Amino acid sequence: MRAEIISIGTEIMLGEITDTNAAFIASELPQYGIDLLYVTQTGDNPRRMHEIFDRAWERSDITFLTGGLGPTEDDITRETVAAVLGEEPVVDAEQEQILRAMMERGGRKMPDRNLKQATLIPSSRPIPNARGTAPGWWVQRDAPDGDTKRFMVVMPGPPAEMTRMWEHHVAPELEALAESVLVSRTLKTVGLGESIVDEMLSPLLSGNNPSVGIYHRADGVHARISAKAATRAEAERLIEPVEAEARKILGPTIWGQDDETLASAAGRMLGERGLTLALMEAATGGAIANAITDFEGASQYLKGSLVAYTADAQITLGVPAEVLTMHGELSEETAKAMATAAREKLGADIGIGVTGNITNQEIEEQAPGTMHIALDDGNSIEYQYSRYYQGREAAKRRAVLQALSLLRAHLMGPHQG
Amino acid sequence: MRAEIISIGTEIMLGEITDTNAAFIASELPQYGIDLLYVTQTGDNPRRMHEIFDRAWERSDITFLTGGLGPTEDDITRETVAAVLGEEPVVDAEQEQILRAMMERGGRKMPDRNLKQATLIPSSRPIPNARGTAPGWWVQRDAPDGDTKRFMVVMPGPPAEMTRMWEHHVAPELEALAESVLVSRTLKTVGLGESIVDEMLSPLLSGNNPSVGIYHRADGVHARISAKAATRAEAERLIEPVEAEARKILGPTIWGQDDETLASAAGRMLGERGLTLALMEAATGGAIANAITDFEGASQYLKGSLVAYTADAQITLGVPAEVLTMHGELSEETAKAMATAAREKLGADIGIGVTGNITNQEIEEQAPGTMHIALDDGNSIEYQYSRYYQGREAAKRRAVLQALSLLRAHLMGPHQG
Repeated sequence: MRAEIISIGTEIMLGEITDTNAAFIASELPQYGIDLLYVTQTGDNPRRMHEIFDRAWERSDITFLTGGLGPTEDDITRETVAAVLGEEPVVDAEQEQILRAMMERGGRKMPDRNLKQATLIPSSRPIPNARGTAPGWWVQRDAPDGDTKRFMVVMPGPPAEMTRMWEHHVAPELEALAESVLVSRTLKTVGLGESIVDEMLSPLLSGNNPSVGIYHRADGVHARISAKAATRAEAERLIEPVEAEARKILGPTIWGQDDETLASAAGRMLGERGLTLALMEAATGGAIANAITDFEGASQYLKGSLVAYTADAQITLGVPAEVLTMHGELSEETAKAMATAAREKLGADIGIGVTGNITNQEIEEQAPGTMHIALDDGNSIEYQYSRYYQGREAAKRRAVLQALSLLRAHLMGPHQG
Repeated sequence: MRAEIISIGTEIMLGEITDTNAAFIASELPQYGIDLLYVTQTGDNPRRMHEIFDRAWERSDITFLTGGLGPTEDDITRETVAAVLGEEPVVDAEQEQILRAMMERGGRKMPDRNLKQATLIPSSRPIPNARGTAPGWWVQRDAPDGDTKRFMVVMPGPPAEMTRMWEHHVAPELEALAESVLVSRTLKTVGLGESIVDEMLSPLLSGNNPSVGIYHRADGVHARISAKAATRAEAERLIEPVEAEARKILGPTIWGQDDETLASAAGRMLGERGLTLALMEAATGGAIANAITDFEGASQYLKGSLVAYTADAQITLGVPAEVLTMHGELSEETAKAMATAAREKLGADIGIGVTGNITNQEIEEQAPGTMHIALDDGNSIEYQYSRYYQGREAAKRRAVLQALSLLRAHLMGPHQG
């Protein structure tokens, strides 16, 4: 099936918001065997919307539309879809009742202008919206050839409403529609270059279904195994032996799979090994702890992070004053002392210390982006030095990745460096 | 001028990357008086690219194109622009020399396939790329009417390369081209509802140039004053008296302007008042410190943050064990004790403590999203309770905003509560 996505919103056209809906939908489509050919964004303009919807209805088997379902006069996505299809939107009694009940639960009387959110056209059926007043529309008609169907899936613009509607109502429909599904398994590795992984997996690369692709990413080299089949279960059966073989070849260089990130994988490994972590962060300013605590269960393995933004605070929290005096705030010795102090202060198994220069000027004769990262597990201390600068926030982000990489490598044992 | 943006990239169509370039360009255009009518994304497909470029060249005065300028066979943006315009790309000797020199500085010999990055067409001149090998193209031709010009601005896809090229080379051209510029000044307020701000500013709302718009945002109500004029200086002169009047009316409810965020404004206020801040974060897991340290100069006012993710860690860092025993981790009393402990431990003027439930289940009989936030300035303690849950990360983000709002309100004095 050929698909396109259309996002409606004047705020997108003014650059006030980024259209994350299109990226979300795009990432969902491959698994249903749907090819995305076009993404279009435009403002709340009747003529342009009509032109774009009309072209989409002409050229694409399925069109995903987000935005413009609000109650105000500017919100004309429903009206425009109806006009393109030559149908009349009519208030649906059941939808009206749902809408009134929802508003009353929120203690409001429904304003008249909201009534248009309860309309349908003959070709549409409503898609429930658990997080807002605008139901979506699932529009379905015979294609001009008479053999196939043509679809428009109309969803609200707020990402929380759209993604929820997608997961509960749209995804199951697409699964049922799909002639074939594409299932992928991504294995994430560390310590090997892209060409080495390519060489190691060469016996698997010639296959067509499943196919195997090698990708270089910020957190290491990924191997993606993808299989197409009539059902999810069948695709999974195709992937299974190839995945087993790839796991045998790549062995302990694999640190995670699919959606796992460095932070979630490091957390999982800490949990599996029954180890706890404490941090002392200067340059990263709490960003490492913030990344780790984005995952449920972090309180099982993270004791805490001492974000020490001044030398005084570092001393208070256990860094020996003489280390700072002798070596300066930005030094290997200070990073190591920070790791040890965090570990001891919070009584954790592993301590990590991060100090560096995230400003755009030299500090203590060290260039912007210079980073000192140390890890203390009570027996020995590991240390890593790096330099990367494309602005303050990028320097922080990069240091977070590096500290988590050091932790991951440590947890995977000495043989994976 | 009517504009459109086209982003090329198969990775965008697979949902592997979000197209941030389009949002960046969209946000830049209004100041040059350019109306953005369409944004389109598509993959590296010759036929579709040709169709989309051709339509853009037909209907838009200026088209901004990003992506597809790499050295590989898939990268066909230059070739497609040339085909749409009926011109032949030819290797430019000067561009070739620049490219070879750049590669040699990097210690590489230029592969033959990179030669296409040195091509131009008669209607294009190169736009220097300080961060990559692909120069952009500034394409300019007479429009069919003979009176006006038509433009295509072709830029590389990697955001770091694109934004740098934009700031140094594209923005100045647009400024020179602009018949009029639009300059905006946004005043950000706290403590007033949207309708109140609307009423207060009603004497200013009837004006057309400058126009005044009122917007409800997550961090308060914003008033945006926008003026159009032939030059930036002239637009600024138009804004000046209206801004002065708005500032007089809104008075101390204004906490920031333009790009200022709650974190940067709170930091600025701390700096202006010579005050220092210390945090103890449980629920936010370092996210508040992370937000504050995104801004240059944070080390002037942030002592640090004690991210205490277990009761033990909180006790170690100064929260009295009996408070935790008597009231539990999620309580007003604990938040207050955390604020005091942070302040005392790190020797800061102001301490903030945040504890709450970011899981999707009840903890200590408190619903998901329940948040306790306290601020201690050494004389008195303020406290705020809230509840908001749309997932773990959203709960953290919301708590960060609320803690910063409490800090901002405190710094602005009791009269703005």
